[in-house]
Amino acid sequence: MMLRARTLLGPGPSNPYPEAQAALGFPLLGHLDPLFLQVLDETSDRLRQVFGTANRRTLPLSATGSAGMEAAFVNTVGPGDVVVVAVNGLFGQRMVEVASRCGAEVMAVEHEWGTPVDAERVLAAHPSPKLIAAVHAETSTGVLSDLEPLAAGKGDALLLADCVTSLGGIPVRLDEWGVDLAYSGSQKCLGVPPGLAPFTISDRAWERRIEKPQSWYLDLGLLGGYAGEAAGGGRTYHHTAPTGMVVSLHAGLGRILEEGLDAVHARHAEAGRLLHAGLAELGLELFAAEGHRLPELTTVQVPDGVDSAAVRKELLERYDLEIGAGAGAYAASVWRIGLMGPNAAPDRVALVLAALEDVLAR
Amino acid sequence: MMLRARTLLGPGPSNPYPEAQAALGFPLLGHLDPLFLQVLDETSDRLRQVFGTANRRTLPLSATGSAGMEAAFVNTVGPGDVVVVAVNGLFGQRMVEVASRCGAEVMAVEHEWGTPVDAERVLAAHPSPKLIAAVHAETSTGVLSDLEPLAAGKGDALLLADCVTSLGGIPVRLDEWGVDLAYSGSQKCLGVPPGLAPFTISDRAWERRIEKPQSWYLDLGLLGGYAGEAAGGGRTYHHTAPTGMVVSLHAGLGRILEEGLDAVHARHAEAGRLLHAGLAELGLELFAAEGHRLPELTTVQVPDGVDSAAVRKELLERYDLEIGAGAGAYAASVWRIGLMGPNAAPDRVALVLAALEDVLAR
Repeated sequence: MMLRARTLLGPGPSNPYPEAQAALGFPLLGHLDPLFLQVLDETSDRLRQVFGTANRRTLPLSATGSAGMEAAFVNTVGPGDVVVVAVNGLFGQRMVEVASRCGAEVMAVEHEWGTPVDAERVLAAHPSPKLIAAVHAETSTGVLSDLEPLAAGKGDALLLADCVTSLGGIPVRLDEWGVDLAYSGSQKCLGVPPGLAPFTISDRAWERRIEKPQSWYLDLGLLGGYAGEAAGGGRTYHHTAPTGMVVSLHAGLGRILEEGLDAVHARHAEAGRLLHAGLAELGLELFAAEGHRLPELTTVQVPDGVDSAAVRKELLERYDLEIGAGAGAYAASVWRIGLMGPNAAPDRVALVLAALEDVLAR
Repeated sequence: MMLRARTLLGPGPSNPYPEAQAALGFPLLGHLDPLFLQVLDETSDRLRQVFGTANRRTLPLSATGSAGMEAAFVNTVGPGDVVVVAVNGLFGQRMVEVASRCGAEVMAVEHEWGTPVDAERVLAAHPSPKLIAAVHAETSTGVLSDLEPLAAGKGDALLLADCVTSLGGIPVRLDEWGVDLAYSGSQKCLGVPPGLAPFTISDRAWERRIEKPQSWYLDLGLLGGYAGEAAGGGRTYHHTAPTGMVVSLHAGLGRILEEGLDAVHARHAEAGRLLHAGLAELGLELFAAEGHRLPELTTVQVPDGVDSAAVRKELLERYDLEIGAGAGAYAASVWRIGLMGPNAAPDRVALVLAALEDVLAR
């Protein structure tokens, strides 16, 4: 196996922050070692800060972001429960699928891909759903949706937000907005390798949870015993946590908080602006609707007559540079360029613009 | 955070093989990078060798060993299916719980903890179950059970084996024995950090699988599209694989196969013999029934009047040495000592014996 040092500017994973990478070299700890439990508690504290929440039940789940989505649904909805899902991309579609597998009665409110969620339509879909779900930053389209109007109008419903591509890249303020549950992935703007799903659930959602979810592995009631939620803080073994990965997440979050959340968000915003301007100079058009574009994930229209896959292959082989294909129906007509975590930086923008210009001119 | 280099001689995680640890420092790859897909394919090949199977569908699942258990059940049993589970420890109990959450009609065949599975009783439990499940190496008791008689008598049923603590430590020959499904964890005898669940399923089991399992994340039909099982070997995105962890597993398996499976098993066997002899010299008694003891995980009776937890704490603080408490009802009366992966070695045996002798004499 010949190693290659790739620059990962696809939709994730991103290259990790140096702190997160270095932490992978730390000696491994047992999942019940007091030292590790301290790291786990601190990791939950740090997650609270980036999620903008005081939720007691905030922890990294031992699987990737998609398992975070599954955990959110299996713990809150069961057969016959009404769930309204705002669908404006692949991950909204996935929510529909996952909720359906819980037996829920799912109402999908479809939007054109590339456009943001229309809160009014979503809120009008049903008078009293148990749960409303939406994607904050659609990884498939590069679109940001405003969660505040959904929260303001949710009434008695719970509000679930997919924060996979937003957390650590753009402001997330769950408590201020009124979001009840959210999940993310370690490998996007948090700048940590893939393998963990940061997760948080409010007391309000907790009180209405499914007592015995169909998933044992993702049963938050059981997981809470390990995460120290029991009175007295005792720990019950549930499964062997991926301790090395948690130590890496702890370090990545530490880096973000040391730099400062506002500064990190500003860095992502600037990198996105630079990229959008540079792409315009190259004559390329963006896919996501103007005014709703994510700085950390940019969708680009593949020019007519250009072989999308061939360009990506050339970028990878000549520049060790990964960008993503489009998702779903846009697989061949859109590229996705991520500037996440440490890659939200002018040098990465300069590299991808120069490499794209070169490869497109060949 | 002050780092401590622990010697992990509990029931897992073990310290990783140097090759697996070093691979965590390799540059991160994207989950659709051709280089990574090659590593993934080789990892599956290597898993086939340690599982002793030719199963096409053999892959590392993106979560810990317990998710491997859940994947096995959600993909094979649904409401009303009859499942017979041999229960001779905590992980047999867990199988009962997980199968129940799939809606299966579960018949638990209870055994005294510390004793092996009695195939005759298990096979007599029901004339035609859909699935029979047993734990090969019970992590909670240190007991080895023979899977061959279960396979020989399974009839039309599928046979599922938990190989979490056996794989890479003692011989596992699924095809020769006639086991249809098996899962493991990366963090035990495979000598890789926790975070992945090696998994394999035979064509016979595949043909009887649940078409749309209640878990989307662990749906083997969808996962197969990513693992290259489609005709032509094309890859469909399902979720973001924990690429760094897979690269580490690839390296750990490479180390095992380079040393040679027989040599690795012999090393575990010798380490276990040395430990058992040494514990006897210290006047300590073993918990697991004689003749059925695992070399890689030893259960020790805590002597009368000794504070089990205090000893473990002293070992951790004075010797940076982790051993495990007992499981379930034996939490305070049994210790569990693992010699897994690189820790199946005379120096580790000497260390734990010396440390135990010292701490018990205090």
